[in-house]
Amino acid sequence: MPRDVTLTRVRVTPIAFRDGPLLNAAGIHEPWALRAIVELETSDGRVGISETYGDEPMLRVLAEAQGLVLGLSPFDLNTMEERVRAAIHPVAGAVEFELAPGSHSAKNAAKVASTFEVAMLDLQGQMLGAPIVDLLGGRVRDTVPYSAYLFFKHAEHIERPYAPDAWGEGLSPEQVVAQARRMISLYGFRSIKLKGGVFEPAHEIACMRALHAAFPGVPLRLDPNANWSLATSIAAAEQLDDVLEYYEDPCPGLAGMAELARHTKLPLATNMVITTLDDFRKGADTGAVKVLLSDHHYWGGLRVTQTLARMCRLWDLGLSMHSNSHLGISLMAMTHVAAAVPNLTYACDTHYPWQEEEVIAGGRVPFEDGAVRVPTTPGLGVTLDRERLAELHEQYRRCGVRNRDDLSQMRKYDPGFTGRQPRF
Amino acid sequence: MPRDVTLTRVRVTPIAFRDGPLLNAAGIHEPWALRAIVELETSDGRVGISETYGDEPMLRVLAEAQGLVLGLSPFDLNTMEERVRAAIHPVAGAVEFELAPGSHSAKNAAKVASTFEVAMLDLQGQMLGAPIVDLLGGRVRDTVPYSAYLFFKHAEHIERPYAPDAWGEGLSPEQVVAQARRMISLYGFRSIKLKGGVFEPAHEIACMRALHAAFPGVPLRLDPNANWSLATSIAAAEQLDDVLEYYEDPCPGLAGMAELARHTKLPLATNMVITTLDDFRKGADTGAVKVLLSDHHYWGGLRVTQTLARMCRLWDLGLSMHSNSHLGISLMAMTHVAAAVPNLTYACDTHYPWQEEEVIAGGRVPFEDGAVRVPTTPGLGVTLDRERLAELHEQYRRCGVRNRDDLSQMRKYDPGFTGRQPRF
Ligand SMILES: [Mg+2]
Ligand SMILES: [Mg+2]
Repeated sequence: MPRDVTLTRVRVTPIAFRDGPLLNAAGIHEPWALRAIVELETSDGRVGISETYGDEPMLRVLAEAQGLVLGLSPFDLNTMEERVRAAIHPVAGAVEFELAPGSHSAKNAAKVASTFEVAMLDLQGQMLGAPIVDLLGGRVRDTVPYSAYLFFKHAEHIERPYAPDAWGEGLSPEQVVAQARRMISLYGFRSIKLKGGVFEPAHEIACMRALHAAFPGVPLRLDPNANWSLATSIAAAEQLDDVLEYYEDPCPGLAGMAELARHTKLPLATNMVITTLDDFRKGADTGAVKVLLSDHHYWGGLRVTQTLARMCRLWDLGLSMHSNSHLGISLMAMTHVAAAVPNLTYACDTHYPWQEEEVIAGGRVPFEDGAVRVPTTPGLGVTLDRERLAELHEQYRRCGVRNRDDLSQMRKYDPGFTGRQPRF
Repeated sequence: MPRDVTLTRVRVTPIAFRDGPLLNAAGIHEPWALRAIVELETSDGRVGISETYGDEPMLRVLAEAQGLVLGLSPFDLNTMEERVRAAIHPVAGAVEFELAPGSHSAKNAAKVASTFEVAMLDLQGQMLGAPIVDLLGGRVRDTVPYSAYLFFKHAEHIERPYAPDAWGEGLSPEQVVAQARRMISLYGFRSIKLKGGVFEPAHEIACMRALHAAFPGVPLRLDPNANWSLATSIAAAEQLDDVLEYYEDPCPGLAGMAELARHTKLPLATNMVITTLDDFRKGADTGAVKVLLSDHHYWGGLRVTQTLARMCRLWDLGLSMHSNSHLGISLMAMTHVAAAVPNLTYACDTHYPWQEEEVIAGGRVPFEDGAVRVPTTPGLGVTLDRERLAELHEQYRRCGVRNRDDLSQMRKYDPGFTGRQPRF
């Protein structure tokens, strides 16, 4: 039966949605975050959906890659991966944004394969009457835990493109604790991450200690995005080692992280120094990190994430999950694969609370006790709201943002901001 | 839909089938080879099947493990693996047979998980109307190539338990070439493997050179099963390096193979020094081997084989497939996973031509041009012939063999045979 159905059309719709003035090591989020919504149509009239990066280089690669899946069955995941691997190569001179490992053009093949894979699995699930998680070996948990992902932030964007969000300013330890309280009261998260690398380490450490005091027993993470020198990271570790469940990418590079690991008992986590299976091969035995952050969008898909999970178990590495600004299609793909991975040893990251808009029917995905319920309906378990898709595409058309550029945005606030890293 | 169906019964039927007097490093095959046929029944009356080792320790482990799958859905592969991993441990003092990596009790969890996985995938496929290969990401090839697996052999078993097979004696180079001609004429194989480690290396090299002369351009392999010393292996390599596609486990141990690798340009292959994912972690970077022989029966299943394949690609290792004496259920499981692995860089091994009997409906699986066609029918694509199953079980009851013991069997021919390895 499934053999007769083929993929007949690929539709890529770039969208833009409101995003808060969130600070990070590279600068600050622009008022609009970009994603691409990808639809695969079949000869029998079905539509499978996927969500990925929406920057211009990614849109170009997706346009190039469309022909690679046409004519395949939705079950041809292996052939699709082989075709993408053979045809898609890094783009010379592409914009590379260090904070967002998905933006590296070296990962183009993995990003495209992942995008197609999710939509093809959505189609398989629809055809078979099975949720995607069942096509990945079945759920080992009924709900997937996420963490409260805190950001230093301003109350509103510098140019006031729209009304400010409801989160207010988040700069002082007190404001960061208040942000955490609000996020936990809304979502129920049971672990907390702070995106650091923004202010003097002493300030960020004070924020972590304030969170520790306000939420005793709640696992905490800090992610300076390699914006601290090795010496700073070593010094900070002493002040954090009774507070953190893991210490995420404080300093740059595999060698730096390996050296830091010799100076702290804190488990080091990364989504910067090991971000591909090839990096894993080269880095897993260096002792640099104890926790990897998976991300199906750029590691190569849900099945590659399962491979990564088996490799983490073999190498005695913990496994967590990375996120970028995303909507509900990505959230559901993350939830399906996280439900299928036994050794997901930490709650996943998600930017979802920072987004107000949605592109899926029924609106925002609900959280219970900080977790998303794993769907039992066929495929991804969510479908597109075409009106919302059209609106978000219209926002894309109008917003003018085409590539994520946190550095230029930061210079609007601070013309002297260099983006030099590590800054501290 | 799939969630409502549960596994309600596990049935394990040990069988024995005629096996030829095939020589190897450990001794000689007994007249009866053992397998276990495992059936998983569902609440909706389906039966999924699997084939694995039939030695007593394996039957004990399977009996212990039955309860681990009852109540699960056939889609609960991840939970099944976790339960097996938690409950099944190596048996102290179990019979360990070095030639057959599947007999190591250290692999009990992997062997049990693999056995259940194949039957559960068979059920999934039946429920979904999809061949197993489609549940593994789809076929990258329509037929799976196997190699002609030659053995030194006597014309008949020492105690003449039944009429001799049709293959005759296979001891001299001329007889080995004749065996190859017969096997290729019957099956169409396009590569040839000789099980060595039986006679003086000079004789086995002469046989390989005779095969090379008789089948110019056909890829050849020699597998002395670690029965040659390192020095012997180094010396032999010079006489084989214009003849072999790979040189399989000539000498013992990872260190020995690594040292040999420094003395030959022949790719070294193994199903002895790297036989688990944990071995892979420890051994892949040693440069000891360039080709791994997968075997879903003891690596942990079809999905683990896919993980292994991805790891082989990352580590730039070739991938082939190992076999033990087996019937058509195993052959079809091998064929499904091999069809789903893009980087299956060599034709698979199979003992299938040495078996005359079958347990599947419709009898023996056909080969075309040395390859097996990948099924397009639901699940494994084969079902049990219950009459034949009963007959082969009756043979098991009567034959008296309960554990594979090539050494004791060899002593019937040569009372002074010690089995000491490496012998040469
Ligand atoms: Mg990070
Ligand atoms: Mg071998």
